[in-house]
Amino acid sequence: MLSVEEATQRIIAAFTPLESERVPLEDAAGRTLAADALAKADQPPFPSSAMDGYAVRSADQGLRRVIGAPHAGHPFPRAVGPQEAVRLFTGSRVPDGADAVLAQEDARVAGDRVEFSATPFPGKFIRAKGLDFRAGQVLAAKGACLSARHLALLAAGDLSHVEAVRRPLIALASTGDELSLPGSPRMPGGIVASSVYGLMPWIAQWGGLPRNLGILPDDSETIAALAEEKCDLLVTMGGASVGDHDLVRPALDAKGFALDFWKIAMRPGKPLIFGHLGKTPLLGLPGNPVSSLVCALLYLRPAIWAMLGRKPEQLLKPARLIGTLDANGERQDYLRAKGEWRDGVLWARPFPRQDSSLLKDFSAADLLVMRPPRAPALTEGGTIEVLALE
Amino acid sequence: MLSVEEATQRIIAAFTPLESERVPLEDAAGRTLAADALAKADQPPFPSSAMDGYAVRSADQGLRRVIGAPHAGHPFPRAVGPQEAVRLFTGSRVPDGADAVLAQEDARVAGDRVEFSATPFPGKFIRAKGLDFRAGQVLAAKGACLSARHLALLAAGDLSHVEAVRRPLIALASTGDELSLPGSPRMPGGIVASSVYGLMPWIAQWGGLPRNLGILPDDSETIAALAEEKCDLLVTMGGASVGDHDLVRPALDAKGFALDFWKIAMRPGKPLIFGHLGKTPLLGLPGNPVSSLVCALLYLRPAIWAMLGRKPEQLLKPARLIGTLDANGERQDYLRAKGEWRDGVLWARPFPRQDSSLLKDFSAADLLVMRPPRAPALTEGGTIEVLALE
Repeated sequence: MLSVEEATQRIIAAFTPLESERVPLEDAAGRTLAADALAKADQPPFPSSAMDGYAVRSADQGLRRVIGAPHAGHPFPRAVGPQEAVRLFTGSRVPDGADAVLAQEDARVAGDRVEFSATPFPGKFIRAKGLDFRAGQVLAAKGACLSARHLALLAAGDLSHVEAVRRPLIALASTGDELSLPGSPRMPGGIVASSVYGLMPWIAQWGGLPRNLGILPDDSETIAALAEEKCDLLVTMGGASVGDHDLVRPALDAKGFALDFWKIAMRPGKPLIFGHLGKTPLLGLPGNPVSSLVCALLYLRPAIWAMLGRKPEQLLKPARLIGTLDANGERQDYLRAKGEWRDGVLWARPFPRQDSSLLKDFSAADLLVMRPPRAPALTEGGTIEVLALE
Repeated sequence: MLSVEEATQRIIAAFTPLESERVPLEDAAGRTLAADALAKADQPPFPSSAMDGYAVRSADQGLRRVIGAPHAGHPFPRAVGPQEAVRLFTGSRVPDGADAVLAQEDARVAGDRVEFSATPFPGKFIRAKGLDFRAGQVLAAKGACLSARHLALLAAGDLSHVEAVRRPLIALASTGDELSLPGSPRMPGGIVASSVYGLMPWIAQWGGLPRNLGILPDDSETIAALAEEKCDLLVTMGGASVGDHDLVRPALDAKGFALDFWKIAMRPGKPLIFGHLGKTPLLGLPGNPVSSLVCALLYLRPAIWAMLGRKPEQLLKPARLIGTLDANGERQDYLRAKGEWRDGVLWARPFPRQDSSLLKDFSAADLLVMRPPRAPALTEGGTIEVLALE
């Protein structure tokens, strides 16, 4: 059996970034940059006022004459001369000739005359042209997943579009005669196909485009037809176990399935398959929903991120244990747990029952506690590593 | 000037949950439940095997005869009798008559005979009917924001739809003659409208439906026409400052704008407006993009969550300070900062420049350090409260 780390590395190595496409800024949230996004203009584009106040010449002293009060977006048309002042608002362009701004709180106005209780110096309350960023500067780097704040920044940099990596199309097939759709009639001994309802939103969150192929019966021809599916990654759920009735591998083998690996030393989720069906990579997740979702976090997410060209992130975080844990066996464990903050430190309390059939506990968990193979027993307060679930 | 806490409370108090609608499970990620979601069936729906192995009667001993090996979804049609065994896979229905499962690792098979090196007891390796959850049990509570895992769980509970709160429609108007669209020609002294590109994805993430009304010029009639807009909350950006040329309030006042409050003792973001235009609540955010986005986090997000009936969350988390901070003045500060983890503890390093015009620093930050009014000076390691930015 393969270790989790080796399986992850082999999956990441099997993918390269997809081609890019031009995306309007308003549709670019969560998209991954295919190239550095460079500012097209300085920000601010001109020296601008940091205060509501008056633009003045710092060399002047005493009473000044207010020669204008331009609206925002209607800059003052001439230079400020000796003993002159121009009324300004925060963010307004500082007119030529002026080299300082004095705040309105420090101004005493009488008619068109103004006197100040503060002393100007060159640059006072002025945001220099390009203070925030300069044209040509990188606003967001290749590989960045665009946040809401990135988009505001790129807009300020005068970008209407970005070059984003195409979203990988992930086709999802649930396999098994025992499966039915939620709310549909069920056969005796049947269960509802549930994993796919968790995988679709996760895939979308991770930057992929999910396509649900529905439930495939345990029938070689139907399964073999998956080989015709056009997508960037084919994901099957179920049929990967060591069961005598496993049809997925033989059916795919007949279509030239090239196995890279299967079975991973982990719990939940041992029966994972990875390989290629022609040019299409195939990830076979376990049929058990908890196992299938944990494996998706560990293997499907990095596969999507590799296709997006996103930098791998350190997702495991240190935490401290609430309760005790026995020494671990040969498999890497992912225990469902609830986190709590104590004085700025994350503590995790594994649920008492860790059976992989418990989807309700999995849904109530916020962390997975990762236990490497042969990890020693731990007592309260022991250092552990955790993976956030949402 | 109002405190941040009082402004937040007054905004939350101004909204009540919207009506609900029936949403298919595959579209329900991120939606808020309008009512508890109850399981429609037990999970597992029958006693099921926790192992790949054999269903047996625990009262029997010695050699048993294998009488069948049903496929998943094709349960064994008759009861298991004395000295009989049925081959099963993990998750399969345990046939009537059997009360234990023995693992295949512990089985020695010869023809249709099987002998075990392990001893059964009643219930061994059997997941009881309803072990995960029972029909009628609450799988996700009213007010929950549905995660990917919730959806897998609800599917397992045989739910094809949920009752979700309608998404609040948030109309967004950028105001100011100085504004242009990204990539469009700019007038001298003009700047690009950027806040709205950050607000739209945030509103969607928070559960709202953003509608961008575009840029409104500083013109009373255009602004007054906002009163005709059909939405759950009208958000303006800009025009809220104390500038002599502020047109938004007079234009709205003429349409019967009822002011609840404006000006908040905070930085960035003092010039905030909240009130009602007829029956439509109106939130006037500052024109400065950093101020406008920080105010959206503090006031727009709770407004959306109040319309969704989501429980208010404690969003401030304890952290420790990297560097030093001077004593704070009369306004509540939100310092842009970078977080780092040290031995499971979150530390935050405020950026050296905190000018509200610095959108690039805001985009690079991951935390806001909250400093209450009159907070004392702090040295390295001091305890602070932080708000996560993404």
